[in-house]
Amino acid sequence: MPDPTAALVVVGSEVLSAKVVDENGPWLARRLRELGVGLRAIVTVPDRFDDVIEAVDRERRRVGWLFTSGGVGPTHDDLTVPAVARALGRPLARCEPLARAIRELHRRHHLGEEAPAAALRMAEVPEGTELAGDPDFPTLICENVVILPGVPRFFRWQLDRIAGRLAGPPFWLANVFLAITEDRIAARLDAVARARPEVEIGSYPRFDDADHAVKLTVEARAPEPVEAALAEILAALPAGAVLRVERVPPPGRGG
Amino acid sequence: MPDPTAALVVVGSEVLSAKVVDENGPWLARRLRELGVGLRAIVTVPDRFDDVIEAVDRERRRVGWLFTSGGVGPTHDDLTVPAVARALGRPLARCEPLARAIRELHRRHHLGEEAPAAALRMAEVPEGTELAGDPDFPTLICENVVILPGVPRFFRWQLDRIAGRLAGPPFWLANVFLAITEDRIAARLDAVARARPEVEIGSYPRFDDADHAVKLTVEARAPEPVEAALAEILAALPAGAVLRVERVPPPGRGG
Repeated sequence: MPDPTAALVVVGSEVLSAKVVDENGPWLARRLRELGVGLRAIVTVPDRFDDVIEAVDRERRRVGWLFTSGGVGPTHDDLTVPAVARALGRPLARCEPLARAIRELHRRHHLGEEAPAAALRMAEVPEGTELAGDPDFPTLICENVVILPGVPRFFRWQLDRIAGRLAGPPFWLANVFLAITEDRIAARLDAVARARPEVEIGSYPRFDDADHAVKLTVEARAPEPVEAALAEILAALPAGAVLRVERVPPPGRGG
Repeated sequence: MPDPTAALVVVGSEVLSAKVVDENGPWLARRLRELGVGLRAIVTVPDRFDDVIEAVDRERRRVGWLFTSGGVGPTHDDLTVPAVARALGRPLARCEPLARAIRELHRRHHLGEEAPAAALRMAEVPEGTELAGDPDFPTLICENVVILPGVPRFFRWQLDRIAGRLAGPPFWLANVFLAITEDRIAARLDAVARARPEVEIGSYPRFDDADHAVKLTVEARAPEPVEAALAEILAALPAGAVLRVERVPPPGRGG
């Protein structure tokens, strides 16, 4: 099986217009990383039907999982669910277990009141949508699309309920901190990167008063290729260039 | 002339793999907002040639300005400039004034040393690229693509040097804070939103201990349509629903 991959579509006029800073993208990046899922894109689009359809249709084709964030409430600007339905070529259909969950949540939070029609409209989901995770506050999954709420607390909660399904081989990372600038190492680094396509090598210069001029990152889905590339890089760099090497094993794999 | 619009492509494997949190997207959203430019998308892609080409080609076609963030250094993972050239169908060409600026910067920061070949490779830019802003640290513009560095300090500095070119009619915003939940207002709000396509109406529920249950946002490029939509919304809402109304005029337009 190929290593799991994902993308995130943030339905976020409020992010683009600087009313809020998106928290779900950075959080999902960290969480997927821990889970061994490669995040391939974060796309923030306005709350517009056609923009959401296009982004979902495009991004979901090239990854294992496509997450959406936001646009799932009862108001006119909540159009993620119908847009996902359109992107998947599925009609919207009333999901009775979801309607029951909405009614129950509503009673609990509104002192026994009945849920109004607008709340129950949220039970109209793409035909065939699975209610995963907690039946009282289910995570909506249809094909490879996971529809998550925009409120960060709920986004995290619903994602965490299905985390077990997502996990892949962990990422192994080593950081190399350098005393010399990027232009001094570019040619040597390029040679190693070309020779070792199985590792991802990144180079991040600093222009502040950090103790290093460049941080190199070397990573792969297993420790051996990281060590092999690291050895080549260390051998290729001029004497005195390396300040220190730091290995960052995956969560739970010790140090 | 149509109101100015923009999109941002973040070339950011380090963001997707949670090594850093992107600061340039949120900052650009705020800055463009102040300038009266509508930000239509933020797309974060990995440092891969084809991904950058595709995102730049796609996004730049639907906005006035396409900004890129990052991937402009001398190492193997810096491929934004050649990717932009490819997306625009232009060859890379050596830009002598840029080579001079790089040499000068290098001398200043490295005690008179000559810039190595890898640094001077950064002077290879899409044919026809304009050096805008400060000639000592120029902002690269080619057609409607503005190529900005990923380091937040430099990103901001180079964007601010060309801010005067970007500005459009300012955004006027009003916030309405409500004591009742979204599902109670959805139908009425929808009617106003449909009747007034010239304003953008957003609805943001809160599920914490804020003093309000929902914040509505009403905005347009002029104050009159905001006031007209606001009056209709206030008239449509049930008695006691509105906690307060807050007007947010553009910078420098008083309160």
